[in-house]
Amino acid sequence: MAKEIPYKIYLKEDEIPKQWYNVRADMKNKPAPLLNPGTGKPMTLEELSVVFCEELAKQELNVTDPWVDIPEEIQNFYKMYRPSPVVRAYCLEKALDTPAHIYYKFEGNNTSGSHKLNSAIAQAYYAKQQGLKGVTTETGAGQWGTALSMACSYFDLDCQVYMVKVSYEQKPFRREVMRTYGAKVTPSPSMETNVGRKINEEFPGTTGSLGCAISEAVEAATSQEGYRYVLGSVLSQVLLHQTIIGLETKAALDKYEVTPDIIIGCAGGGSNLGGLISPFAGEMVRGEKNYRIIAVEPASCPSLTRGSYVYDFCDTGKVCPLAKMYTLGSGYIPAPNHAGGLRYHGMSSIVSQLYDDGFIEATSVKQTDVFAAAQQFARVEGILPAPESSHAIKVAIDEALKCKETGEAKNIVFGLTGTGYFDMVAYQKYNDGVMDDYMPTDEEIAASLAQCPKV
Amino acid sequence: MAKEIPYKIYLKEDEIPKQWYNVRADMKNKPAPLLNPGTGKPMTLEELSVVFCEELAKQELNVTDPWVDIPEEIQNFYKMYRPSPVVRAYCLEKALDTPAHIYYKFEGNNTSGSHKLNSAIAQAYYAKQQGLKGVTTETGAGQWGTALSMACSYFDLDCQVYMVKVSYEQKPFRREVMRTYGAKVTPSPSMETNVGRKINEEFPGTTGSLGCAISEAVEAATSQEGYRYVLGSVLSQVLLHQTIIGLETKAALDKYEVTPDIIIGCAGGGSNLGGLISPFAGEMVRGEKNYRIIAVEPASCPSLTRGSYVYDFCDTGKVCPLAKMYTLGSGYIPAPNHAGGLRYHGMSSIVSQLYDDGFIEATSVKQTDVFAAAQQFARVEGILPAPESSHAIKVAIDEALKCKETGEAKNIVFGLTGTGYFDMVAYQKYNDGVMDDYMPTDEEIAASLAQCPKV
Repeated sequence: MAKEIPYKIYLKEDEIPKQWYNVRADMKNKPAPLLNPGTGKPMTLEELSVVFCEELAKQELNVTDPWVDIPEEIQNFYKMYRPSPVVRAYCLEKALDTPAHIYYKFEGNNTSGSHKLNSAIAQAYYAKQQGLKGVTTETGAGQWGTALSMACSYFDLDCQVYMVKVSYEQKPFRREVMRTYGAKVTPSPSMETNVGRKINEEFPGTTGSLGCAISEAVEAATSQEGYRYVLGSVLSQVLLHQTIIGLETKAALDKYEVTPDIIIGCAGGGSNLGGLISPFAGEMVRGEKNYRIIAVEPASCPSLTRGSYVYDFCDTGKVCPLAKMYTLGSGYIPAPNHAGGLRYHGMSSIVSQLYDDGFIEATSVKQTDVFAAAQQFARVEGILPAPESSHAIKVAIDEALKCKETGEAKNIVFGLTGTGYFDMVAYQKYNDGVMDDYMPTDEEIAASLAQCPKV
Repeated sequence: MAKEIPYKIYLKEDEIPKQWYNVRADMKNKPAPLLNPGTGKPMTLEELSVVFCEELAKQELNVTDPWVDIPEEIQNFYKMYRPSPVVRAYCLEKALDTPAHIYYKFEGNNTSGSHKLNSAIAQAYYAKQQGLKGVTTETGAGQWGTALSMACSYFDLDCQVYMVKVSYEQKPFRREVMRTYGAKVTPSPSMETNVGRKINEEFPGTTGSLGCAISEAVEAATSQEGYRYVLGSVLSQVLLHQTIIGLETKAALDKYEVTPDIIIGCAGGGSNLGGLISPFAGEMVRGEKNYRIIAVEPASCPSLTRGSYVYDFCDTGKVCPLAKMYTLGSGYIPAPNHAGGLRYHGMSSIVSQLYDDGFIEATSVKQTDVFAAAQQFARVEGILPAPESSHAIKVAIDEALKCKETGEAKNIVFGLTGTGYFDMVAYQKYNDGVMDDYMPTDEEIAASLAQCPKV
């Protein structure tokens, strides 16, 4: 007989995974390597270590070891806010009157408000181990910057954050959280870097983009002694750290003998999605099991569903290595009325390859539909979700309603990556009925993609 | 041998208490009854039921039953965000280099951001059971209003919130959270009620007070068919619901055979503190055990430490029953530079009586010291605390540092009632170094107390 499933499944503290899972080791088709934009050859450890902490550069290049030990200091930090619960959405199921069983892995119960802390603490740890003074980074919606501020404060590292201007202005309180944790926050594009000044000159009044903020943060890191650059998504090292999400999810579901039929995650740079699905995708690439995995992206930034799988620049300033990924072109900037994160032009190379190999589906959703789903979820499940996470909620609800039609009791699992407490400007727009939807034209995307490098 | 204590002690879902504990039943000296301001006689169930839901009025008057069953619907809602963890503050202990063992009961992991939801869902449930259309209430810092909005949305009840004007202006995003949950939010004093118009006329430009917002909400409830008034603190019914905090805390500590030496809670209206300490105070009033219990209040609103234990009005408009409590006088309004909640002029009659009988100590702290403690805590424990909760943090740190001097390994337990995500205006003031401290003069308090009714 199946065990009765509680509202929240918590692992025990000693069941928190002690290793991250590197799905690349099990993939037959490996993600394409990062290329040196100057030579066109794969980036070496030496080259990567100019920008990244050495241990993180090693993780970036590691496509052979399936398991990577989590250092004890990081394990201890994880214990402050992990394990995160897998929640059975009994109230949502009831509200939808669906036979589906809906589960979500909730990563929002920490002050950064999202899963970003899982990688922030790892990156801060390796920076500290290397004896660095500090790190630089970019942040879009502010979740990553907050997470990194917390992590740096814990290890007493200097933290310099370039925050996409539109978010900086829409989320003044995010800045104060970061300051409370001791970080220096600069709106991007700024006048503090060469690349920032250049972009401000070329595009006066620009509201910024993640690609641009990355360029500024990289310049700041490489122009200061004892600093390195850290990134909150896209990179394979980040996805590796985020596998803690999927490993905990799988362990929790296994305890109750629940096998997901559908696994849903929102996709911006791809690290949350990749982290959630890695253990499941691992079973798929090893030919052991089959799941339906759905990546959900905003209609205003549809890299998987409308982009091309090519080598592209990771940043607007073109100072970073080239990555092969589903991309809209490094110059692509979603319209300012797009709320929240998921605004990066490209997708994690791991997620891109899994998608290209058919292990993942992708779909895009409009933001007013996303906020409608967010509000519905908030009212019945009691958690005010982040706009990013609400993309996954929207599709989870859609799939649950399909089950209602067919009468199937599918197990639907989605990633609830964070809370929306700092997204109330966007919620206000939705509450006031003044939020609109934006979708780029095919011509806009083609023009942006035409700028990709020829490799 | 003592068991190793995890970072977070979680009860199992089926260990969530199924009854609230009514400490009044075990108190030898009962709290003084509420009085009818017209007749001077104890309020009857009939009289109370004009303002309050009937079942809640019964709970208000119940001084005999030690245990009150929690209805199943409320138990189910509790399962969405409870049990809340008892956290061992290993990182704070290390940062302070103290031999003390510090524990905190964390009530902030829900969208209302605080313990207020424990009573909100109970009050909404009883309103729904009674067939009401909706409820009215006041909110100060906004935690209560948010919690009630969530609870009313869950039970599909109309929710009208009068929000103290200073908080309404400092916390626009709180309003949007409430709106997302479907509530109507009005800054108080408003021009929508007689009492609001009167206060606006008498004190033009007033930033409002809880006492005034209460008067408006009561008037709104009694002037609309099918509405009742609900209150987020002070009342004995609210304290009763909040005993879920203390019961869970005691059960969690008992599991690891931990006996608190000191129990610390912040005190505004007293329901969080009372809820936390009730099971422990129960052992004390029954003569079974002894604990050191410390109520911490802001220096700018020091009802226990500088008020008088007399009958007073519960609201500025003098429409509510009289309560015997430690009070600063119903006209007392803390200076506008006082951040966050804990701004009510009086204290729960249960807490007042326990304090008067010597079962509780009280101390007051300055707000710059409170924010310094908040920042220290945030940086090492990873949780950005509410200003209210940080009053308890401040004293917990002080007590832990005393242990460092004496070498004692005391068990210090405090209530971390909520998170500060909507208090970033106050944090910004602190970060910018422009926050100041305010303490009323003896003359101000005496003048305010002189307005108390003669009973």
